[in-house]
Amino acid sequence: MSVTLYVCTTCRAEGDPPEGPRAGARLHTALAEAFTGEAVRVEPVECLSVCKRPCTVAVASPGRWTYVYGDLDPANAAAILRDGLPRYAATPDGIVPWRERPEAFRKGVVARIPPFPA
Amino acid sequence: MSVTLYVCTTCRAEGDPPEGPRAGARLHTALAEAFTGEAVRVEPVECLSVCKRPCTVAVASPGRWTYVYGDLDPANAAAILRDGLPRYAATPDGIVPWRERPEAFRKGVVARIPPFPA
Repeated sequence: MSVTLYVCTTCRAEGDPPEGPRAGARLHTALAEAFTGEAVRVEPVECLSVCKRPCTVAVASPGRWTYVYGDLDPANAAAILRDGLPRYAATPDGIVPWRERPEAFRKGVVARIPPFPA
Repeated sequence: MSVTLYVCTTCRAEGDPPEGPRAGARLHTALAEAFTGEAVRVEPVECLSVCKRPCTVAVASPGRWTYVYGDLDPANAAAILRDGLPRYAATPDGIVPWRERPEAFRKGVVARIPPFPA
């Protein structure tokens, strides 16, 4: 699947240690490991402007809607995305039927953007 | 400028008349009129998944970051976007310096997404 997963590495979460890596950076590390060798490109990004709902990712793919998700926890986000991204990639337009979406996608959706014009 | 302005036509606002057009539809009408004949493509969209912050638009352009804005009022959004979109189009990457952004863009930003890979 040709999916790009943008991960905000600047997201801070409550309880982040002042000197340790931020929650967003920890999320990026977890996702880069989870998708090693797979057809998901994990891209670190400085700020997706969803600072009030850390942690945040955006899922994009040619010809498909882009989805932005917030409220992700670095501790379990990899499992959620390993479940949700193949469902996304299996659709022609990126729109997964509501009941097939991971709950974290239903509750955490921040915005969606139509497919980029070809 | 080759800018696409996606306008959510399904956004409801408090005080929308039950039988009249929704705030999102009114916003789309206002923006389509405001940008008639200009190099901004105004596209109606069914739901940008920002239902808690009506009204909502997304601004996209090849090679530039996509921005999603909420909290727009159909009564004055056209003026705001006529101010803000040329500033966006004048940048190489879509990132307008903070102090040059319309206040409604600063406060209303919902998310931003990196430029689509070429």
